[in-house]
Amino acid sequence: MRELLSGERGFESDNCSGVHPRIMRALQEVNYGHASAYGYDPVTAEAKELFNRLFDREVDIFFAMNGTGANCAALAHVIKPYQAIICAGSAHINRAETCAPERIAGGKLIGMPAVLGKIKPETLLELVSEWQSEHVALPAVLSLTQATDEGAVYKPEELKELCSIAHSHGMKVHMDGARLANAVVACGGDLKGITWEAGVDLLTFGGTKNGLMFGEAIVFFDRTLSNFFKYSRKSCGQLYSKMRFIAAQFIEALKDGLWLEMAGHANAMALRLYEGMKKSPSFRVPYKPEANELFAYVNQEIRAKLNERYIFLNFGPEPGMSRFVTSFDTKPEDIDEFLAYAEQLRGACNGEHT
Amino acid sequence: MRELLSGERGFESDNCSGVHPRIMRALQEVNYGHASAYGYDPVTAEAKELFNRLFDREVDIFFAMNGTGANCAALAHVIKPYQAIICAGSAHINRAETCAPERIAGGKLIGMPAVLGKIKPETLLELVSEWQSEHVALPAVLSLTQATDEGAVYKPEELKELCSIAHSHGMKVHMDGARLANAVVACGGDLKGITWEAGVDLLTFGGTKNGLMFGEAIVFFDRTLSNFFKYSRKSCGQLYSKMRFIAAQFIEALKDGLWLEMAGHANAMALRLYEGMKKSPSFRVPYKPEANELFAYVNQEIRAKLNERYIFLNFGPEPGMSRFVTSFDTKPEDIDEFLAYAEQLRGACNGEHT
Amino acid sequence: MRELLSGERGFESDNCSGVHPRIMRALQEVNYGHASAYGYDPVTAEAKELFNRLFDREVDIFFAMNGTGANCAALAHVIKPYQAIICAGSAHINRAETCAPERIAGGKLIGMPAVLGKIKPETLLELVSEWQSEHVALPAVLSLTQATDEGAVYKPEELKELCSIAHSHGMKVHMDGARLANAVVACGGDLKGITWEAGVDLLTFGGTKNGLMFGEAIVFFDRTLSNFFKYSRKSCGQLYSKMRFIAAQFIEALKDGLWLEMAGHANAMALRLYEGMKKSPSFRVPYKPEANELFAYVNQEIRAKLNERYIFLNFGPEPGMSRFVTSFDTKPEDIDEFLAYAEQLRGACNGEHT
Amino acid sequence: MRELLSGERGFESDNCSGVHPRIMRALQEVNYGHASAYGYDPVTAEAKELFNRLFDREVDIFFAMNGTGANCAALAHVIKPYQAIICAGSAHINRAETCAPERIAGGKLIGMPAVLGKIKPETLLELVSEWQSEHVALPAVLSLTQATDEGAVYKPEELKELCSIAHSHGMKVHMDGARLANAVVACGGDLKGITWEAGVDLLTFGGTKNGLMFGEAIVFFDRTLSNFFKYSRKSCGQLYSKMRFIAAQFIEALKDGLWLEMAGHANAMALRLYEGMKKSPSFRVPYKPEANELFAYVNQEIRAKLNERYIFLNFGPEPGMSRFVTSFDTKPEDIDEFLAYAEQLRGACNGEHT
Repeated sequence: MRELLSGERGFESDNCSGVHPRIMRALQEVNYGHASAYGYDPVTAEAKELFNRLFDREVDIFFAMNGTGANCAALAHVIKPYQAIICAGSAHINRAETCAPERIAGGKLIGMPAVLGKIKPETLLELVSEWQSEHVALPAVLSLTQATDEGAVYKPEELKELCSIAHSHGMKVHMDGARLANAVVACGGDLKGITWEAGVDLLTFGGTKNGLMFGEAIVFFDRTLSNFFKYSRKSCGQLYSKMRFIAAQFIEALKDGLWLEMAGHANAMALRLYEGMKKSPSFRVPYKPEANELFAYVNQEIRAKLNERYIFLNFGPEPGMSRFVTSFDTKPEDIDEFLAYAEQLRGACNGEHT
Repeated sequence: MRELLSGERGFESDNCSGVHPRIMRALQEVNYGHASAYGYDPVTAEAKELFNRLFDREVDIFFAMNGTGANCAALAHVIKPYQAIICAGSAHINRAETCAPERIAGGKLIGMPAVLGKIKPETLLELVSEWQSEHVALPAVLSLTQATDEGAVYKPEELKELCSIAHSHGMKVHMDGARLANAVVACGGDLKGITWEAGVDLLTFGGTKNGLMFGEAIVFFDRTLSNFFKYSRKSCGQLYSKMRFIAAQFIEALKDGLWLEMAGHANAMALRLYEGMKKSPSFRVPYKPEANELFAYVNQEIRAKLNERYIFLNFGPEPGMSRFVTSFDTKPEDIDEFLAYAEQLRGACNGEHT
Repeated sequence: MRELLSGERGFESDNCSGVHPRIMRALQEVNYGHASAYGYDPVTAEAKELFNRLFDREVDIFFAMNGTGANCAALAHVIKPYQAIICAGSAHINRAETCAPERIAGGKLIGMPAVLGKIKPETLLELVSEWQSEHVALPAVLSLTQATDEGAVYKPEELKELCSIAHSHGMKVHMDGARLANAVVACGGDLKGITWEAGVDLLTFGGTKNGLMFGEAIVFFDRTLSNFFKYSRKSCGQLYSKMRFIAAQFIEALKDGLWLEMAGHANAMALRLYEGMKKSPSFRVPYKPEANELFAYVNQEIRAKLNERYIFLNFGPEPGMSRFVTSFDTKPEDIDEFLAYAEQLRGACNGEHT
Repeated sequence: MRELLSGERGFESDNCSGVHPRIMRALQEVNYGHASAYGYDPVTAEAKELFNRLFDREVDIFFAMNGTGANCAALAHVIKPYQAIICAGSAHINRAETCAPERIAGGKLIGMPAVLGKIKPETLLELVSEWQSEHVALPAVLSLTQATDEGAVYKPEELKELCSIAHSHGMKVHMDGARLANAVVACGGDLKGITWEAGVDLLTFGGTKNGLMFGEAIVFFDRTLSNFFKYSRKSCGQLYSKMRFIAAQFIEALKDGLWLEMAGHANAMALRLYEGMKKSPSFRVPYKPEANELFAYVNQEIRAKLNERYIFLNFGPEPGMSRFVTSFDTKPEDIDEFLAYAEQLRGACNGEHT
């Protein structure tokens, strides 16, 4: 079957990667005997304990199946149908989840102007200061994406300011952490600083994009919010029966830092690509990647030819950009070969960025 | 970690089982290189082809993450918010999915009287013959569970009659096949006879309960219905990114009959348990299991003691019943030891069924 | 235009009536100058005050446009998407609102067996005592219809018992009072006894079916529930802009008992019809009407002929029954002429009830 | 009660007006005898016929209770939960309906940049030309507000171009005509030109804001879309029982042009106010009103004092603006007195626009 898999390691998405070998081994090892379903098993209990240690405090955690589902279930639990979820216009929940939040969680999404996916405090303040009445959806949740879909990362103090504005206007703060690990690495490992210490109330903690086969965690820092969340999860279609198989993956990823190792590697590979592109006239890279996503303008002639061999998507924060996503399994030689091939194409077509 | 897993092989649910070793191996083997995400990969393409062969005709198939999610996404695509889904009152979608169908799919669920979860043609005919007007939810989908949650199995001719009534009243027929494999075995392998030949329009084809780690398939026999289903799946939170890992499991299960082997074994184990119980005064088993679920009245004194060692749930089609679910990995000696232990308890407490 | 209106005063529904002349006059009188929209006007304030006096305590009231909308908005505010609304299977919200509650309010409707639309305490107790878990919709609201769609009326002590069961299981009690006025009359005017004194938490107080042109009131007895209800009402599409025109109708109806006078007359007319039918072999009336709906078996030959002149609907609690609804404007001679005509038809076709 | 009504005729909203005397008389005249409920009456039939004549073609029309409800029911019928409704960011459905469209109709609202509420063809073209995939809500409906909430009016040829873009991208066109009458007048009476001739597929035809007591009409020009709309209307909570009372109002308004007379008067009054303001240094009016809404910057000192006597709201397309809405019952002397009072205040506080 090997030959069936398309391409080698490209830059389409971190979703194109497989599963880290240690995670795969953990799946095998947990595969014996019977365990109570739906999370009432000792592996899930162990994983929950691990999250407490990771965050250095008591949290309530629940596993979900995929990123969109985890976001929807989390938001569903803190939104009412007459309320609004405020997020960046380009946030994944607003741009890349096909009405799933509206459909499953309910309420209204209000996408705000943002810079590389990061909401500015003054923009938020302006929006929540607007005239409120029963005629307008009531802002109830601020959802921040960390790292953003544009590859930017909120700093702890930025988050603190946003959370403070949200809280003082009666809103809860949700963090979409599908790429949380990459953000943690970008912030020097300050997991607490970019989550509960900043004021985040609930978090979707990504697994799938960071070397797991499947599975996300929903983490409640405001534990008063987690009552009956099991009902929300089930009614949102996100309750997994054989839960130990998600739990075992998270245990393996979290127990000794593998999750940060994987994300750190992905971030480093994005940086290596950035450095390489900077040296080539075929690329224009307006900003340095903070996480594992790099956006660049590619000479159009070269882009077409590169796309024949390497899958990467041609969209980004500005028209004409291309997106390059690295992963835990991106190899330095993948980067180098890609750059060398681009250079070779440039020789052939005399390409400079246009 | 081994010691963490509670209990041995009990009878709580087929969800308590792990993953068949061949399925686990297939997961490992597909874990290399990169593959396009969201089902645009060659493994998924191969799996789709296999479904065509399995059903001996062209079908449109889509993978989903879990049973509730698969049901909801399937129903969502064929229901409008002013329409009704007709099902057995005891159907999983009506009794055990916590409003997920109402929430995600929309419309109204009308749970009908049924016998062991099987809808009778005359009951259906009566319901759809009632006065229809804009004041009443319009019946649009008949959802049949095969095998039912009570362990019964519709015969091909029974399905044909129900589908015919549904179609002649403008309804589509959905089959919840979370335990389809067990039903196929019970019907002598007549997969076609209990699905599209009978008139089923769309099917959720279970994987998780039958030896897979996770993953269900949604099968459209009426292919005119599958347009834009990818959008429904995504907006229902059921689009899995690393799709090859579901596809590879289904390939392994379907390519040479492993799926029926697993289900057949589970059915046989339920029968073995049934035969054993029949011989013991501690149990009263009013009907023979057709699939892998057995319902029995257990002497109450013995039940309490049995429950200390073996997990099984105390509910069923009638008050006072207990449910015993067998699985692909239930061993004959699990049954025998259970029966022997029950016998031993009976000796101690002199129990007869009360 | 007069000749355009079909039929004279039949028994199709109290919705077929017009508007009481005093209500019409009140509409004219309030029609001058400008008033702030959406209920921020002095007429609405006056109406609210009148409700306080009516219930002899402080209540929070909000107007809505129609019955289905009022029910949905009220339920919407006290239900979460993973919860269940328990009601009689034949309740208007379950049988005659075309998924509106599921669509607008959310959650799951569980229709229980009931006698003439009245839920029995023991049936309720059994249902709420069932095994609860995250897999099953959580019962959160008990919705009682007063008077029921079958024309029966809950007595104060019956309501007290039902409310007590609901409350002790963490549920709120909603009353669908589309025909509340008829029930109040049937209970000797004991408005308090059949609402807040019995434990009802929120009520939809019907207007349209009782001589108003349009408009219903949602009354919160548990005033802690009414926070943000204005948002719910708006997002449920039930906020009326020129609110003074609903308020003025309620003021007129409530200020000196006109609402009970109208309902009392309707009830009396139903009784007159009942007494008349009892004397004729063409009808079989198994039970005495408590409100303004009478159900009877009509000799089939006579029924067809009667239906040519008088509109009434042929459905009821049991197959074969016909429904007769009286109204504030039903005249004694309407009843008498109807009965006389039936008698005349009987002479012609020699009909007895078959 | 007369003295209870706050203020005289201000400029808060056309919702603050009462009912035109001829409409009120029509309500009285239709108030006799019984009529079949829910629109199955001869008055409603007559009104439908009148709409055909009005549009000079066969249309399917349905009445609804209020503006938000009419919009939601109309949109509900042409949107699927994975699709998007494209509208101006400032459209009423996006800014002033508190999630009602998301809640009741479903799908996702995408609010586009617009100029005074009018969408530009090039902006629409850009949006619908973006990359479409299952990850993104599928644009299915273009909703245009005519007149816009900023008081601007689309010209027939502008609508034609927008509809053409929408249709060529598989979208349907909905028009929110809460103030359609004012737009028709502004377009020289060209009702056909700004509706079906331009390509509009379905329309909500406002009544309440134009002198009616309550009631809106939903008009299907694409009659293939209206199948089962009665079910949608009911399940959206917008089915009125005593329908003749809406129908009679529309008959009166439409039969001899009263609706355009009322709107024309309101438009003229807005113009009179505009002309007056232009002459005063207390006001700055950047653009001429096309319908019955005028936006102006008012000297802040004067504004506060004006607001004490006249209700008008302080918001608009740009920060710092105030909104003045005229109505069928605004009198020339209301305008003149307002302007005179402003002038008098200016004398007192020496105000110029700041």
